[in-house]
Amino acid sequence: MVKYITGRLLLVEGALLLLPLIVMLIYGEFGMLKTVIVPILIALAIGFLLSAKKPLDKTLHAKDGFVIVGLSWIVVSLVGCIPFMMSGLIPNFIDAFFETVSGFTTTGASVLGSADFDKLWMPESSLNGMRGIFFWRSLTNWIGGMGVLVFVLAIMPQQDMKSSRLVHLMRAEMPGPKVDKIVSTVKKTSAIMYTIYIALTLLQVTLLLFGGMNLYEALCTAMSTGGTGGFAIWPDSMATFTGSAVHSPNYCVWVITVFMYIFSINFNLYYLLITGKALAALLSEELWWFIGIVVVSISAITINIFTTYQSLSLSIRDAAFQVATVISTTGFATTDFNAWPNFSKTLMLTLMFIGACAGSTGGGIKISRLVIMIKGALAEIGHMIRPRQVKKITFERKSIGDDTVKGTYAYIVAYVVVFFASFLLVSAFDGQSIETSFSAIVACINNIGPGFDQVGATSNYAFLSPMSKIVLAFDMLLGRLEIFPILLLFSPSVWLEK
Amino acid sequence: MVKYITGRLLLVEGALLLLPLIVMLIYGEFGMLKTVIVPILIALAIGFLLSAKKPLDKTLHAKDGFVIVGLSWIVVSLVGCIPFMMSGLIPNFIDAFFETVSGFTTTGASVLGSADFDKLWMPESSLNGMRGIFFWRSLTNWIGGMGVLVFVLAIMPQQDMKSSRLVHLMRAEMPGPKVDKIVSTVKKTSAIMYTIYIALTLLQVTLLLFGGMNLYEALCTAMSTGGTGGFAIWPDSMATFTGSAVHSPNYCVWVITVFMYIFSINFNLYYLLITGKALAALLSEELWWFIGIVVVSISAITINIFTTYQSLSLSIRDAAFQVATVISTTGFATTDFNAWPNFSKTLMLTLMFIGACAGSTGGGIKISRLVIMIKGALAEIGHMIRPRQVKKITFERKSIGDDTVKGTYAYIVAYVVVFFASFLLVSAFDGQSIETSFSAIVACINNIGPGFDQVGATSNYAFLSPMSKIVLAFDMLLGRLEIFPILLLFSPSVWLEK
Repeated sequence: MVKYITGRLLLVEGALLLLPLIVMLIYGEFGMLKTVIVPILIALAIGFLLSAKKPLDKTLHAKDGFVIVGLSWIVVSLVGCIPFMMSGLIPNFIDAFFETVSGFTTTGASVLGSADFDKLWMPESSLNGMRGIFFWRSLTNWIGGMGVLVFVLAIMPQQDMKSSRLVHLMRAEMPGPKVDKIVSTVKKTSAIMYTIYIALTLLQVTLLLFGGMNLYEALCTAMSTGGTGGFAIWPDSMATFTGSAVHSPNYCVWVITVFMYIFSINFNLYYLLITGKALAALLSEELWWFIGIVVVSISAITINIFTTYQSLSLSIRDAAFQVATVISTTGFATTDFNAWPNFSKTLMLTLMFIGACAGSTGGGIKISRLVIMIKGALAEIGHMIRPRQVKKITFERKSIGDDTVKGTYAYIVAYVVVFFASFLLVSAFDGQSIETSFSAIVACINNIGPGFDQVGATSNYAFLSPMSKIVLAFDMLLGRLEIFPILLLFSPSVWLEK
Repeated sequence: MVKYITGRLLLVEGALLLLPLIVMLIYGEFGMLKTVIVPILIALAIGFLLSAKKPLDKTLHAKDGFVIVGLSWIVVSLVGCIPFMMSGLIPNFIDAFFETVSGFTTTGASVLGSADFDKLWMPESSLNGMRGIFFWRSLTNWIGGMGVLVFVLAIMPQQDMKSSRLVHLMRAEMPGPKVDKIVSTVKKTSAIMYTIYIALTLLQVTLLLFGGMNLYEALCTAMSTGGTGGFAIWPDSMATFTGSAVHSPNYCVWVITVFMYIFSINFNLYYLLITGKALAALLSEELWWFIGIVVVSISAITINIFTTYQSLSLSIRDAAFQVATVISTTGFATTDFNAWPNFSKTLMLTLMFIGACAGSTGGGIKISRLVIMIKGALAEIGHMIRPRQVKKITFERKSIGDDTVKGTYAYIVAYVVVFFASFLLVSAFDGQSIETSFSAIVACINNIGPGFDQVGATSNYAFLSPMSKIVLAFDMLLGRLEIFPILLLFSPSVWLEK
């Protein structure tokens, strides 16, 4: 079953690689065609080989779910980095792997410098243009946002899915402490999720077109926003759209800001909305925590940077955008928040850890997890004062079992251990400042992208040593898949039994 | 009962203030006598007033334990800072409060610059010498190490303690996830703890005397080591004893190193040792985790700094000393580890969080808590892979109940929330670098003392704003008392009921 699903996944990746192929054909980048045709052939060949024989035993255990997810993300990234290497954009394998993992995990940390973006903006219809390659780069953000396997589940034939408990797959890939089918079958749930996702992305594309972007720019930008990835196609990220040189200054910035928030909210709420249960959606506890944190953060930063900016509207615009980019873990930038006063920087750092809502395309620790933890701790403190009193924790108007609370804690402990281990490794491999290595790990494990200091918004990750890049690439995978799938791949007990 | 115990406590503090009075008399610092006589009188007056009436209801609930501990530490610090203010050493109230809290909580963060230490080393028998004041400063470290209340318990009349469940007091003040009486009564347990503490301190004094220190120097140094406090009486901390100008170079450094480790180990083990249960002591799980972490850290840092030092013995000496100072949360220094390579700095930062063993005088999160958390997380992960399997966690060969695990997690959540809240506040009040404010909080909440960058080993905390100092002083109290007692003081439910 593990083989079979990995095989199907490669077939899907082969099909997705056709999209940049089309872009290349449109822009006449015929010299680049081979860079996607080769990975397509590889993906199809291995994919057919692995999925040729349907498995007899269709049962999936929780463990298998984790293993499939962990393995398949690595396989998909290995194939996905071929276009970058062959095109000469990122010839080095480790750099290309870093960039691809960064794309699929929706991190958005890049090794590309501004010289590389010049290659993208060469005149159209040059044989070796990079529009197709950069389209693939943004597409990885978009696919990674909702999850490669969820996509496979959405298009998998119904008869393959009987009695196989594929919900384990969905649980292992989708973010948040608890994922459940919103409708009766996994296939339908995945399909609904992707439909909402596509609809929202297309809406953003339309709005960006009104702002003066062309279709290519709007598509790439919307895909990177949708996955909360943050790969931009301009070297200064989104700062371009704050200037007066553009069609309608600030319009695009605000569209992107709003959509970053939209993609940070649990997609289940959109499903409730379109099925007419607007009230249920509005009563979501996580939503109100999210709104509260966002409003407080924007206000605090606006006040803090107003003295420097001297303009209320600009302060609000930059605060709203930068809070969005960090809490949604997208990683776009309109300004270098590295230059902000320290209070704002610290607040941004705090938001980086918090992250988006569960069930969204955003990363981080997730609001719901945070709320469950704080409620759990408060209940414990209450229990400490009055030992005879036992209080049940409720979240979203449901009682939260001990299992969920303990699972959440276990997640945090694993998170902290991975964090410090990576911190030590990156410090050993690279002699950068503590702020640089610390924030690089924060930015990668929470799938944000840019950090502070030398990996800040105006810089990139190219200068790091190969070993550090590998550590950070694994941090991205650990963050995106919420640690356990990747951790289990390294656990001998998973491989020895069976 | 709350009043009564706070009263007894002030009486004890008044008595302890007699010690610096004696030092002043010996060194002929007659101009300074008033600086301790005034607080003695205040402490005795309020103390007699509060403890005059014996309480009728001698029952103590868990909640009362927390409240007493939280309150009394603040009261003791308020009285304890009078000598610093009156002597003119630290005339500013907030600075003096910061220094006193730093002393009692065994943090060792100081506002004193090298000019202040010149006042200490004025020729003997000058009327306004500071030997008495600095003795009090080191004494706060020593008392805070074992706990002011534990001291009160040790000397409280037996008949007052019947049926009053004073074990709650001990639990709230002594570090570690779980504190139990090692012998049948609280009074005896406290007395044994203090006897071991005094014996070890006197042993260190003797060994330091052999190294060429005079009695005053040896006493102050041993008291600061014993409490794992870190207040030194030299402006360059312990770097003096690495030079060739001293009696026996490096001898004192090694004595202090060894005793920092000794005071980081659970005192229960020493009790087991002297009662002939050496085997039981050696089988302590926490001890072996501690030894493991220490040996690995010293080795890693030695290798890392060897290229700069070019001398194996010097590398080992500095690595062993600095690991000791950080894991025991003492805060002495023989070298500025701020200038070390990044890997060593990161490792030091990690050790700062870990801290010493439970039941020692050291601070930090504590080894036992760390082990319980990691075991809990591993059990959860195991449960996730094989949902039907339930594994019990054991620590020190005892099964650990769900309550202890959840209490430990609640502690960590509260710790992280306090940490980020302080981080935001200090960033708002002071425009220092992220590294400075971050490490200042790490150093204060874990009761270490020096951090990195501008609050590094060669610097001090004087330049921070008064508001930041108040936040950091509360962080020290939160860290020393393991958060809940201080947190509860701010909880309205504690004050409204009753």
